[in-house]
Amino acid sequence: MNINGKHFRTIWLHEEDPKIVRIINQQALPFTFEIIDLKNLEDMRRAIKDMYLRGAGLIGAAAAYGMYLASLEAEENSFDDDMQKAAVILKNTRPTASNLAWAVDIMRSKIPGKATLAQKQEAAKNAAMEIADGDAEYCRMIGIHGLALIEKIAKKKKNETVNILTHCNAGALAFVDYGSALSPVYAAFDRGIKVHVWVDETRPRNQGASLTAWELGRHGVPHKLIPDNAGGHLMQHGMVDMVITGADRVTRRGDAANKIGTYLKALAAKENGVPFYVALPSSTFDFTMKDGVKEIPIEERDASEVRFISGKTPDGYISTVQICPDETEAANWGFDVTPARYITALITERGICNAAEKSITKLFGA
Amino acid sequence: MNINGKHFRTIWLHEEDPKIVRIINQQALPFTFEIIDLKNLEDMRRAIKDMYLRGAGLIGAAAAYGMYLASLEAEENSFDDDMQKAAVILKNTRPTASNLAWAVDIMRSKIPGKATLAQKQEAAKNAAMEIADGDAEYCRMIGIHGLALIEKIAKKKKNETVNILTHCNAGALAFVDYGSALSPVYAAFDRGIKVHVWVDETRPRNQGASLTAWELGRHGVPHKLIPDNAGGHLMQHGMVDMVITGADRVTRRGDAANKIGTYLKALAAKENGVPFYVALPSSTFDFTMKDGVKEIPIEERDASEVRFISGKTPDGYISTVQICPDETEAANWGFDVTPARYITALITERGICNAAEKSITKLFGA
Repeated sequence: MNINGKHFRTIWLHEEDPKIVRIINQQALPFTFEIIDLKNLEDMRRAIKDMYLRGAGLIGAAAAYGMYLASLEAEENSFDDDMQKAAVILKNTRPTASNLAWAVDIMRSKIPGKATLAQKQEAAKNAAMEIADGDAEYCRMIGIHGLALIEKIAKKKKNETVNILTHCNAGALAFVDYGSALSPVYAAFDRGIKVHVWVDETRPRNQGASLTAWELGRHGVPHKLIPDNAGGHLMQHGMVDMVITGADRVTRRGDAANKIGTYLKALAAKENGVPFYVALPSSTFDFTMKDGVKEIPIEERDASEVRFISGKTPDGYISTVQICPDETEAANWGFDVTPARYITALITERGICNAAEKSITKLFGA
Repeated sequence: MNINGKHFRTIWLHEEDPKIVRIINQQALPFTFEIIDLKNLEDMRRAIKDMYLRGAGLIGAAAAYGMYLASLEAEENSFDDDMQKAAVILKNTRPTASNLAWAVDIMRSKIPGKATLAQKQEAAKNAAMEIADGDAEYCRMIGIHGLALIEKIAKKKKNETVNILTHCNAGALAFVDYGSALSPVYAAFDRGIKVHVWVDETRPRNQGASLTAWELGRHGVPHKLIPDNAGGHLMQHGMVDMVITGADRVTRRGDAANKIGTYLKALAAKENGVPFYVALPSSTFDFTMKDGVKEIPIEERDASEVRFISGKTPDGYISTVQICPDETEAANWGFDVTPARYITALITERGICNAAEKSITKLFGA
């Protein structure tokens, strides 16, 4: 991720002291760019739990680094017990994040049973870095495959600006680097292709307004913030060339759960002949499920996320305002499912495939 | 409109002094219920301009009462000139509101040229009251016709709750009384039919969260606030029995311009077999237009409406917070157009008709 000309990841080892893990504090964005040092398991637990970091890929890497920090605190003669406790603590921070458990389990398998404490700690460090590198590399590959799609549109438009609409934040901030939906955008921008991104604000948590707008801005990619209501009008009037979103879970037949509101954009895209792509690393597939609308559980979140909005006051403080009458109740489903028939294709680290069982299983052999 | 058990209109003559016009200050909603006294043309000009009142029907009635207030200030020997000036002032407050010019012109035609000043003022008062009564009566009739649709669904559901989704505020607050989209809901509720309304918050101006939620709450109608992103998920899972919205302009073939985001809900309704109704008094038809997507001009509003959100702070003040980075630009189209093919039917004061030229012109002979 390019932040005002300097390359950053969302999580990394301290440049001078590899016993410290550093992260970008996403709670402070978009108003303050703050790097936090995490020195032990408890620091990481709090960072994940209180959403100083978020996003499927990043949560996995954070859990891995959390296990590494735990190894630094573990006692030589109770190492396995200590690590087992750390695993439980980390898995409980965000129980629905599937990458979290996946990363913790890999970490445990990569630490040798018979070795010195220092060797175990070194193995944990290397395993965590490998998981983070893997996440970044998968996202980079998604960018390369998606770039071809953008290039094709740019060519067709005779190098006029390609307008891309995205929903929520599936950018570098949701992963270790690059992002899923935004990785092709960065790849295209870096090659000099003219791109412009319509950024859905993504109510109720406004990840588009606060995170996607911020990271596109830091990288220098032209973009405009729009209300989630605007996409249909834009597509109806030819102002969107393609939609790319991320996904939280994709079934074996290609139904995609993503941030609430994604489905409405997919409908408008289909209706107006705009290609609709879902970008995801293969870890997002859930091969045990077929019918996404029926099978994927949709989290209901606290109504306060709908009733209150946070932002910066005129005097520069962060404040929360209530937008409805005191007694108004609200409902808050976190995700919706876009059936495969609305998805033009899936962009993965292995390449592009149809949102269809045959095509997905051919690419991933699952 | 029923406000905590007492009947109100949004605009009326002062109960003791008919030289004063009273309105509900909609700027203060939903946090404060405040009645403002308007004593002269300038008061009314400011009330319309600064959106102390808004909504097609209400703006028309307000302009009419504004002309009445102007007549009270006019000089006997420059009456026509004074009224002509007042007409220009009022028409310039919200130049795109078609009801405004319509009401002002009716007022001028209803004031006799040859009469005493007192007679002219009396004629202006009666004409303004007639316009307001007409608006309320049309909305009441929309309620009666729409009620039949809700009753039918209630019967089919064996008197289980009928779930109705609405977008923006097309309630009593947008007219003199009853509203368009909400009039059938109030009629059904008052007859004891179990109804529940999903209230789209309606970004960027949040008229759903602030006005629709408020007026439904005052009347006692069960409802829940939802992000504009939620409707697709709700319809996909059978949680919406019908959608009713208002309209800002409807063409002779039934294409409907309404608050931005309406089109996305219409797509989801069509896709999921949910009936989608547009409720409107006949003054909303624009018989000069056919193809709404091509012909209806869509107002682009100030980006600040997207970048900032107002609400109540924890200590009870009204404050505005910025939700995106300082340098982020935003785009803000106020309306979108739902093509007639997505509209199940139009609910008007004369009855229900298909969103199709034949059906519309049959009912209105235009």
